[in-house]
Amino acid sequence: MAAALVLRGAAGSLLGRGRRQGAGQAGLAAACSRSMASKTPVGFIGLGNMGNPMAKNLIKHGYPLVIYDVFPEACKDFKDSEQVVASPADVAERADRIITMLPTSHNALEVYTGPKGILKRVKKGSLLIDSSTIDPAVSKELAKEVEKMGAVFMDSPVSGGVGAARAGNLTFMVGGLEREFAAARELLECMGSNVVYCGGVGTGQAAKICNNMLLAISMIGTAEAMNLGIRLGLDPKLLAKILNMSSGRCWSSDTYNPVPGVMDGVPSANNYQGGFGTVLMAKDLGLAQDSATSTKSPILLGGMSHQIYRMMCAKGYARKDFSSVFQFLREEENL
Amino acid sequence: MAAALVLRGAAGSLLGRGRRQGAGQAGLAAACSRSMASKTPVGFIGLGNMGNPMAKNLIKHGYPLVIYDVFPEACKDFKDSEQVVASPADVAERADRIITMLPTSHNALEVYTGPKGILKRVKKGSLLIDSSTIDPAVSKELAKEVEKMGAVFMDSPVSGGVGAARAGNLTFMVGGLEREFAAARELLECMGSNVVYCGGVGTGQAAKICNNMLLAISMIGTAEAMNLGIRLGLDPKLLAKILNMSSGRCWSSDTYNPVPGVMDGVPSANNYQGGFGTVLMAKDLGLAQDSATSTKSPILLGGMSHQIYRMMCAKGYARKDFSSVFQFLREEENL
Amino acid sequence: MAAALVLRGAAGSLLGRGRRQGAGQAGLAAACSRSMASKTPVGFIGLGNMGNPMAKNLIKHGYPLVIYDVFPEACKDFKDSEQVVASPADVAERADRIITMLPTSHNALEVYTGPKGILKRVKKGSLLIDSSTIDPAVSKELAKEVEKMGAVFMDSPVSGGVGAARAGNLTFMVGGLEREFAAARELLECMGSNVVYCGGVGTGQAAKICNNMLLAISMIGTAEAMNLGIRLGLDPKLLAKILNMSSGRCWSSDTYNPVPGVMDGVPSANNYQGGFGTVLMAKDLGLAQDSATSTKSPILLGGMSHQIYRMMCAKGYARKDFSSVFQFLREEENL
Amino acid sequence: MAAALVLRGAAGSLLGRGRRQGAGQAGLAAACSRSMASKTPVGFIGLGNMGNPMAKNLIKHGYPLVIYDVFPEACKDFKDSEQVVASPADVAERADRIITMLPTSHNALEVYTGPKGILKRVKKGSLLIDSSTIDPAVSKELAKEVEKMGAVFMDSPVSGGVGAARAGNLTFMVGGLEREFAAARELLECMGSNVVYCGGVGTGQAAKICNNMLLAISMIGTAEAMNLGIRLGLDPKLLAKILNMSSGRCWSSDTYNPVPGVMDGVPSANNYQGGFGTVLMAKDLGLAQDSATSTKSPILLGGMSHQIYRMMCAKGYARKDFSSVFQFLREEENL
Repeated sequence: MAAALVLRGAAGSLLGRGRRQGAGQAGLAAACSRSMASKTPVGFIGLGNMGNPMAKNLIKHGYPLVIYDVFPEACKDFKDSEQVVASPADVAERADRIITMLPTSHNALEVYTGPKGILKRVKKGSLLIDSSTIDPAVSKELAKEVEKMGAVFMDSPVSGGVGAARAGNLTFMVGGLEREFAAARELLECMGSNVVYCGGVGTGQAAKICNNMLLAISMIGTAEAMNLGIRLGLDPKLLAKILNMSSGRCWSSDTYNPVPGVMDGVPSANNYQGGFGTVLMAKDLGLAQDSATSTKSPILLGGMSHQIYRMMCAKGYARKDFSSVFQFLREEENL
Repeated sequence: MAAALVLRGAAGSLLGRGRRQGAGQAGLAAACSRSMASKTPVGFIGLGNMGNPMAKNLIKHGYPLVIYDVFPEACKDFKDSEQVVASPADVAERADRIITMLPTSHNALEVYTGPKGILKRVKKGSLLIDSSTIDPAVSKELAKEVEKMGAVFMDSPVSGGVGAARAGNLTFMVGGLEREFAAARELLECMGSNVVYCGGVGTGQAAKICNNMLLAISMIGTAEAMNLGIRLGLDPKLLAKILNMSSGRCWSSDTYNPVPGVMDGVPSANNYQGGFGTVLMAKDLGLAQDSATSTKSPILLGGMSHQIYRMMCAKGYARKDFSSVFQFLREEENL
Repeated sequence: MAAALVLRGAAGSLLGRGRRQGAGQAGLAAACSRSMASKTPVGFIGLGNMGNPMAKNLIKHGYPLVIYDVFPEACKDFKDSEQVVASPADVAERADRIITMLPTSHNALEVYTGPKGILKRVKKGSLLIDSSTIDPAVSKELAKEVEKMGAVFMDSPVSGGVGAARAGNLTFMVGGLEREFAAARELLECMGSNVVYCGGVGTGQAAKICNNMLLAISMIGTAEAMNLGIRLGLDPKLLAKILNMSSGRCWSSDTYNPVPGVMDGVPSANNYQGGFGTVLMAKDLGLAQDSATSTKSPILLGGMSHQIYRMMCAKGYARKDFSSVFQFLREEENL
Repeated sequence: MAAALVLRGAAGSLLGRGRRQGAGQAGLAAACSRSMASKTPVGFIGLGNMGNPMAKNLIKHGYPLVIYDVFPEACKDFKDSEQVVASPADVAERADRIITMLPTSHNALEVYTGPKGILKRVKKGSLLIDSSTIDPAVSKELAKEVEKMGAVFMDSPVSGGVGAARAGNLTFMVGGLEREFAAARELLECMGSNVVYCGGVGTGQAAKICNNMLLAISMIGTAEAMNLGIRLGLDPKLLAKILNMSSGRCWSSDTYNPVPGVMDGVPSANNYQGGFGTVLMAKDLGLAQDSATSTKSPILLGGMSHQIYRMMCAKGYARKDFSSVFQFLREEENL
């Protein structure tokens, strides 16, 4: 969901890093092909919907890969050219830079610290970059274990969906030692157009979680305000226009409006197909909730938003875009 | 609070009406002075903090006024040049265009339908413009009574505070018969830089209420997200930057950030002095709640935001800017 | 819904008034028939589902009635024996004790203060008892108007549904002048088994609203706790038993448990048929919300409960018993 | 807080087990002293405010103890008569029945699975009873590890505070293999008057969490309803009476009313001193939130209650009884 998570237009002007990278893409590619012979293999673990196109972008930039996925079929695409191995430990034996892209905290723990995990055979000085979206507390825990082995861990969750992964314009939010950031960026820029350094380990996850929580809140707020206005007799397009020139303006009102008929090219114009699924938003809000509980941070609207997306999942909205909360609120009485 | 309620920069490009009006301001002023002699008196009822400077802007544009306020001292400023009368009915006897600016629905009912109210002596064809922020259902009720007398009613609440009222750049959101809008705009443009037609009677109120509800929600959401991020180790300025280039972006994060030290020139940079008071936000959310209850519109986050601002009023935040919700959430345990 | 709103067993021991009344029912009936000849007519306005059986219980106790309903058919049952008149004003002309039982605040205002309303011809000293469930602020307004005419107004909403109305064991919560309470009780005891004096005008409504708000909150809470426990592996009956011997105990857990299979003879045992409809609970919560907004009382859970019942109405639960919130929460993902 | 968590009066009639146990207390004590000579040592880990009096009740019933606490001073009281050892592993070496009473999930993990933890030297067939209040998911994890060593794990959190711990009338909610329940009960009945079997491992925690979540919800609901009623003109005592004879009745309204002046002998009568601290309620709600998030159970009011108690901790209520939410809501505007 490229559109859903980052405003490309704005990005360049705000983060010079993004713009420079964009401008230098062609030059970089050239440099890559020149130095290809000397490039050492990169490990990649987790070749699902997101991991698969990410890995292919690394190959395009000239990196030989050592890959592993718990489901062997996930590696089929790669069999001819790349080394497919039998465990995360095997990856760690053959590559000193590894990227992991896994669905849950539990999977990440298994891949790093499990009996056949990376840490069983990681080399000193290796760079381990986890692009999974998981609990920042788990990221910190992993970092501690990795450090014990003399290696380096960075969390680097992404914004942008499968489309952005294919196009190579994901955003990466990176947490870890600042002195290692350049090394991480070298790889991440093959897969993304924005690579943002956020601070110490776990801050990449934290930034993503905070953004998505605020996104969920303002999307529900936009849906409530639009629905109330319509019931009070306002034309939806006119109301959106007024909000967008006023203090109610937000990404959910001006770029991704949830009301059918207000904007083109967004999920609300297409029966809420595509975009960022409600079930994924519910997952991210669960992580926000966990982080808030453990840091004792009050999140009154964030917690309520989590419950609303949870309810929606139970009511048949799991696979629809998260802007379908407008539809969820709107359903008329006496169905 | 001009800054707090409307983004001036964006306004012109979004609402052509606003831009044309802005460009034509000089021309309009010229036209005004030419026709001044022929200008008929305009009634103005309610000369408080907002009404006072609004009335003065009408005078500047050459309109003689007939004024009334329930507190006689409120009319002192005007005594020399304008007619001060003893009741709303007296205003209606001497002016066929009347603007009212009152604090509550109750006051509006009294001024229009009370025993000495406007309707006791309103002339046929009069134009009555209510700029109070009140329940849209009350606006509709008033319109019905006004119509019975052969006159015309429009609701026209404002965005922008005392500063904008003085500078003459309020935003008016106008509901009523479209064919009367030009007549209303002639007067309103003397006091504001944006005059937006919203639809039938009550839609002006509806637009304002919906905007402010969404504003409240996204402000609290921004405060929660910033606070959570800080507790998770993120630098506040960096977090704001990331949100503002991402899908969490909103007016509260990019123009009026509630965290001290992130932006200059906003209430959070000045101990939450100035701006839009928490008690006023609580009032507007009460109107949103009433409208939602009567139209049976679900406002889960809007209702919760109402309660949060209500709690803040009870905890000493009534006079602080509404962005102080960040401070409210942040107060540490074990005070 | 007798069972749903008052615990009969407990009532006697807590409110002596209730018990004495119950014990003396036979004696009272005897007294009634003795003095029947001298009984003066009682007015009754609003003969819907509730008003119809209430009026009939007055007749059983020997009171001749003067009746009116906006829908003439509602008076058919009564035509032979009672006077059916053409307006509330006509009722007021012929009876100096009047009971009103109306669906909304709006209807109550019309019946009392409308162009053919009671107040057009009310006699001095008349006793006007409103058993509608409406906004306490409206009750107070009506009382003021009634008082101006030299008559007496009391609000007296009921607990208990159509069954209790038929059986004559409603609960009345009465607000008004204490010295007039005995006169009101004489009539109300013909229709109910508990007549509770609550204080000045509006406190009857206030008591009902507060009870039903707390009921809504604890019902949703019970549904959430039972659902969470079941998902964590607890047997529902055992969990209910544990809650009911512990501090989680409430009427919703021990008398009206929302989980099918836990109790017999409650709506959850009958697919949520019967009982107290979700749409009625949503109405009462709307009144609670209005009262809380106007008195600036924070109701965080009460407001949220209002929104939840509002959502349920929009999702097909309007006619089901309000304990169906368990079902609403429980629906599984991936329907 | 004996009173706060279990209604003693009701308990006996609902759970035969409780009553029988109560009745047989004297007989049991006799049996205990007879068999004392043959009693084997029991391990006890965690001798804080709760653990200390619990351990002493075991001694009173004739059990020799092997004790450990991470703070050596916590064992001083016991030095003469009992064996104080240097680690959980040492306890496991000398006792085949062990009770643990620890503040957090983290501590429990350390004590069981840490480098000097119980599992390092636990004997086959040992019975390990954890009375800590922790995440049921952690209980299940511990049970799995314990089972691998051929031993038995039961979770057995308590209701009732320090007073109940001293008096030996705690309530234990026990999860684990049913065939081992009798063995656990033998020990637990030395410390409590109710020992309730809840089902498989984790259900003891689940029952406690669900009860306390419902308690929090109904306490806040009671506080909101009482506060709203008072603002609407009702006398607090009368309102409590009405609620308690109606469907709003709950433990928080009839046994532990949060409004000062309504009841004697409860924290609200004593400036919210004593009772069950707000910070402890916030902790339990955090566990409820975690369990709900991981089982994807919607807890709209439970989640909101968590946030409210979290806010209260940040506003100076951490050490007050959790019924002080009434005071928190009530604080007047314009302090």
